[in-house]
Amino acid sequence: MIAMPQIAPAEADSADEIEALFDRLWPLLRSLTGEGVRATHDILSEYLPLQRIEVPSGTRVFDWTVPQEWVVREAYILAPDGRRLFDVAENNLRLVNYSVPFRGALRRSDLEKHLYSRPDMPDAIPYVTSYYAPRWGFCLSENERRALPEGDYEIVVDTELKDGALTLSEAVLPGLETDEVLIWTYTCHPSLANNELSGPLAAAMLYRRLAAWPERRLTYRFVFAPETIGAIVYLALRGDHLREHLAAGYVVTCCGLDTHFTYKRSRRGKTLADRAVVHALKTLGVEHRVRDFSPTGSDERQYCSPGFNLPVGSLMRGAYGDYPEYHTSLDNKALIDFAALRGTVDAYETVCRTLDRNLTFENLLPYGEPQLGRRGLYPTLGAPDQAERVQALMWVLNQSDGTQDVLSIAERSGLTVDQLWSAAIAAEGAGILRRVYVGQAMHA
Amino acid sequence: MIAMPQIAPAEADSADEIEALFDRLWPLLRSLTGEGVRATHDILSEYLPLQRIEVPSGTRVFDWTVPQEWVVREAYILAPDGRRLFDVAENNLRLVNYSVPFRGALRRSDLEKHLYSRPDMPDAIPYVTSYYAPRWGFCLSENERRALPEGDYEIVVDTELKDGALTLSEAVLPGLETDEVLIWTYTCHPSLANNELSGPLAAAMLYRRLAAWPERRLTYRFVFAPETIGAIVYLALRGDHLREHLAAGYVVTCCGLDTHFTYKRSRRGKTLADRAVVHALKTLGVEHRVRDFSPTGSDERQYCSPGFNLPVGSLMRGAYGDYPEYHTSLDNKALIDFAALRGTVDAYETVCRTLDRNLTFENLLPYGEPQLGRRGLYPTLGAPDQAERVQALMWVLNQSDGTQDVLSIAERSGLTVDQLWSAAIAAEGAGILRRVYVGQAMHA
Amino acid sequence: MIAMPQIAPAEADSADEIEALFDRLWPLLRSLTGEGVRATHDILSEYLPLQRIEVPSGTRVFDWTVPQEWVVREAYILAPDGRRLFDVAENNLRLVNYSVPFRGALRRSDLEKHLYSRPDMPDAIPYVTSYYAPRWGFCLSENERRALPEGDYEIVVDTELKDGALTLSEAVLPGLETDEVLIWTYTCHPSLANNELSGPLAAAMLYRRLAAWPERRLTYRFVFAPETIGAIVYLALRGDHLREHLAAGYVVTCCGLDTHFTYKRSRRGKTLADRAVVHALKTLGVEHRVRDFSPTGSDERQYCSPGFNLPVGSLMRGAYGDYPEYHTSLDNKALIDFAALRGTVDAYETVCRTLDRNLTFENLLPYGEPQLGRRGLYPTLGAPDQAERVQALMWVLNQSDGTQDVLSIAERSGLTVDQLWSAAIAAEGAGILRRVYVGQAMHA
Repeated sequence: MIAMPQIAPAEADSADEIEALFDRLWPLLRSLTGEGVRATHDILSEYLPLQRIEVPSGTRVFDWTVPQEWVVREAYILAPDGRRLFDVAENNLRLVNYSVPFRGALRRSDLEKHLYSRPDMPDAIPYVTSYYAPRWGFCLSENERRALPEGDYEIVVDTELKDGALTLSEAVLPGLETDEVLIWTYTCHPSLANNELSGPLAAAMLYRRLAAWPERRLTYRFVFAPETIGAIVYLALRGDHLREHLAAGYVVTCCGLDTHFTYKRSRRGKTLADRAVVHALKTLGVEHRVRDFSPTGSDERQYCSPGFNLPVGSLMRGAYGDYPEYHTSLDNKALIDFAALRGTVDAYETVCRTLDRNLTFENLLPYGEPQLGRRGLYPTLGAPDQAERVQALMWVLNQSDGTQDVLSIAERSGLTVDQLWSAAIAAEGAGILRRVYVGQAMHA
Repeated sequence: MIAMPQIAPAEADSADEIEALFDRLWPLLRSLTGEGVRATHDILSEYLPLQRIEVPSGTRVFDWTVPQEWVVREAYILAPDGRRLFDVAENNLRLVNYSVPFRGALRRSDLEKHLYSRPDMPDAIPYVTSYYAPRWGFCLSENERRALPEGDYEIVVDTELKDGALTLSEAVLPGLETDEVLIWTYTCHPSLANNELSGPLAAAMLYRRLAAWPERRLTYRFVFAPETIGAIVYLALRGDHLREHLAAGYVVTCCGLDTHFTYKRSRRGKTLADRAVVHALKTLGVEHRVRDFSPTGSDERQYCSPGFNLPVGSLMRGAYGDYPEYHTSLDNKALIDFAALRGTVDAYETVCRTLDRNLTFENLLPYGEPQLGRRGLYPTLGAPDQAERVQALMWVLNQSDGTQDVLSIAERSGLTVDQLWSAAIAAEGAGILRRVYVGQAMHA
Repeated sequence: MIAMPQIAPAEADSADEIEALFDRLWPLLRSLTGEGVRATHDILSEYLPLQRIEVPSGTRVFDWTVPQEWVVREAYILAPDGRRLFDVAENNLRLVNYSVPFRGALRRSDLEKHLYSRPDMPDAIPYVTSYYAPRWGFCLSENERRALPEGDYEIVVDTELKDGALTLSEAVLPGLETDEVLIWTYTCHPSLANNELSGPLAAAMLYRRLAAWPERRLTYRFVFAPETIGAIVYLALRGDHLREHLAAGYVVTCCGLDTHFTYKRSRRGKTLADRAVVHALKTLGVEHRVRDFSPTGSDERQYCSPGFNLPVGSLMRGAYGDYPEYHTSLDNKALIDFAALRGTVDAYETVCRTLDRNLTFENLLPYGEPQLGRRGLYPTLGAPDQAERVQALMWVLNQSDGTQDVLSIAERSGLTVDQLWSAAIAAEGAGILRRVYVGQAMHA
């Protein structure tokens, strides 16, 4: 277990509570669209006040078109001996996602082209999708494939692609300022644990934490949507707004493992989003690695496309692709450490608090130091020990020229945003510092 | 002993001479104000032509007010057995600096609140001040405290706080240009050796060295004043002038130990002040460490306050707070190595020479190389060895485009400012380089 | 042998072919001027279509004057015993280059002042020149010097300095754009192998490689000239043109040893010239070292003089002065590895291809990702393996905002210019990327 300082009260979002929510979401058949997604959002709505947006099939969004809605009634194969194989009702991964309908008999050799397995992981059922090319197929383990007898198989793929809608949901937690933090996660993978449910679970718990803060300076926007097409749809809907208001955004995914944190930087690389995470992880003292942006990965790809280039990164535990169970049936509940997942919520809350406290001040007495002693901010006795509190005060006074934010003072001084923010609030109360409003959004 | 190349002639400011001056200054009771300071400056005036400035008590300087002048007539305690304890006449540190008058009898338990000792250093008498809150107190070692018998004590603190003045002194050594180098040191600590006298001693010796130079390009300003309030007063008096003319400044303090050099950067971090010290220390080949600016420390705090933000750093040996004897009676003569202190003067002289030689040139024959051979600047025989002198010449010719100063050429080439300056002067004599006047002050 | 991936077809410029050309050029008596240079350029003209430029003696070029042409008829010494010593007909290095005529008898002690040897390398004949001061002299090994008997010596230096011309030659290989790459090498050292012939040999072979490319975007300019004065003459002739058009330039010298590559940066240090070499060497996976610019060395000194400051570096194997045989008779054929020299041609070709492919694109669908699947650029099956080809495509799409060139995308992504260029050409073909013309010359 990675050591994590405990931030939330022990009763808040306990590991047990998270696990119970996991168990409810796990069996739902999620995809880009459809009832499984809606059922998922219904359950999440118990935790945060989601506003649902349904975008009709066929809607043009930039270079893309919203696909038809996928309906799965039943799907399985009858073996030559009559056994029912690969039933989607038993495991959502059995059916290639977005399979078109098919019903008929095939010999084993013809069936083979429709079967997907992983020779390198003979016990795992792979997760396979074919969203934009009409295919049907079943997923199975390599061992299952080898054991298939010769003969005729009966195929039942009772699915439908019909005009409907793509579902996404958002909840906005307002703050004193209109600058925003985006918490983005996806709900399109069926029965995958780390690379799906860890994200929505962490985001839902984080919402409750921030909602419980006595005050928020920034506005927090939580969104649940399918990966890729969902982000493109959302940028079509909210891209201009985000360009105006987004201070920092994060793709929440793959964050349920008991391993080091991984932060993947935004395309710009040194935005407030990036600096806040790096500072928060250092402050928490947790093991972490920072990797540069790359245009492969999750929805940071869309947010960081050159036409938007928004300050969006991703804070994970480990990373997609770095654990062998990724995109297979082995990415299941056994892999998740719910206490670690709660630690992820702690880390995100620390990131948000870092952002929220990242004020900018102007020193109203900038010529030499103010006389702090008579304001009760400095020990009147010149004896050899100077508290960290005094150091923090000296740093904010020295650096606050109306351009350096608290985070940059933290980066230079080695002190924490929390220490410096406290000192600055005290100095503001004493009339020495004045708060300067600086738009946090990059495009403001 | 840290190996130091010898710079000044052996007879100049010998370790013995410095020690003799130390012995005269040691017993004086210095404070923020008062006769001890004036006596100190009287003695220093034998070494450099100090102009005294007396700033009346009550004068407003930025956020501060010049305090009243402190007069000490006598101060001691009579023990229950009649022994005279903690007599300020025997050790200046015995009396809390700026103690208000008190005369009366106290039981040991009541006296305790007025006694200051260091449990972590049971043999040391701490140095304690209470400039801005009315207190009286005595300093003693923890062992002395433990040995105090029960009973009644007679307290005599015959001091006075009266309207008078705060004393500071300056001496300006003019150069060909009005850009200035500030040498700042403080004279407010009673009987402390490294964290007080090493500074004024080094500054006084440095003045004589620079006064003996055949020519100075820059102007050198030496100031002796109390710490903090003295710097604030001086900025009120000379801040606008320094903003116009200051090329580099240094707080000279804690520079008498036989240990590595420490350079603390200015707030801006990469000013000429900072670059000159780093180059000088490398050139001297002495062990040194460079630390970033922080707003705790000595008077660089005031010079680097955001309203001034001047290019002022501090070159020390070790640093305040890094040696356990700091701010106690153990910071005494035994700690000082007078040969090392003379080495500090060498280092400061090298810094000043680096600044003085940091000219900027323009190559008048910038298209290809000039033909140096026919000017006697290049060997006419193409045989394999090219002196460092030729290398230095090639570097100044190649880099001198009217924007690169000699120091930046030194930084890039690995050659010294002295080598490059000599080559440039030769090329200037040959009519190939022209001197370009570049204001050295940051705010010019 | 340093491992080099093989680039050119095995039959192109074989090590044997290079060696044969070496053997023809070796015996010619080259100097700043004269028939040896012309004979050298005549032979090179069999490999590339050189245009000869003859610049008359006495022509003023910037701070220099083109020297008189040097003619050598015969030069030797008759020993007291009648033996003929140090005959220039046997070894070009015997006569100090540009020796003035002399005929007469000298005693050994008077002769000594005209003899040059290297006490530190007793078997080597040094290479000595006296271009701009009238001298005569002979070069010999230290062992030969020690063996000279006392007595009278007969000196014959039948040379002439006469008005004539300085010879240089160029060949321009045109491309689609007028931005240029300069390949510069010198032909003024008599019978020196690595520090002379390796350069012209590599340049000639490189010309044939680039001429064989199906298409060139950039224009490639090859020049053969004497060192120093030749570069100054060439800058007088072509400096304004190069300022307009030069994208990158390289001094080709000392590149025939079987050792690591050395790249010496241009004065600016981070130009396209510098970045292309660093990328090419990394891509090739060969051992290499990068050193900063310095104004000593070869003709990069002239191209990087402050009046021109062109993007010119030098790619070598090892470096001048780093091998003990430098500028002596031991820098001969035995030192050269012709396969390694061919590897140098490979490296230069890779550098040129890197420059040629360094296009800049603009993503025409910059809002989110384009839907690559329906354009056949992305696998329609979401199964777990994504080819490098797809990664390269994602990178060029994400980064192409009209300002990032392919090389900068390579530097950020870790992919090669070749991979990214291929992906970009495919995306351009699909109408997703548009080529943006960006002048490659620094002064454009």
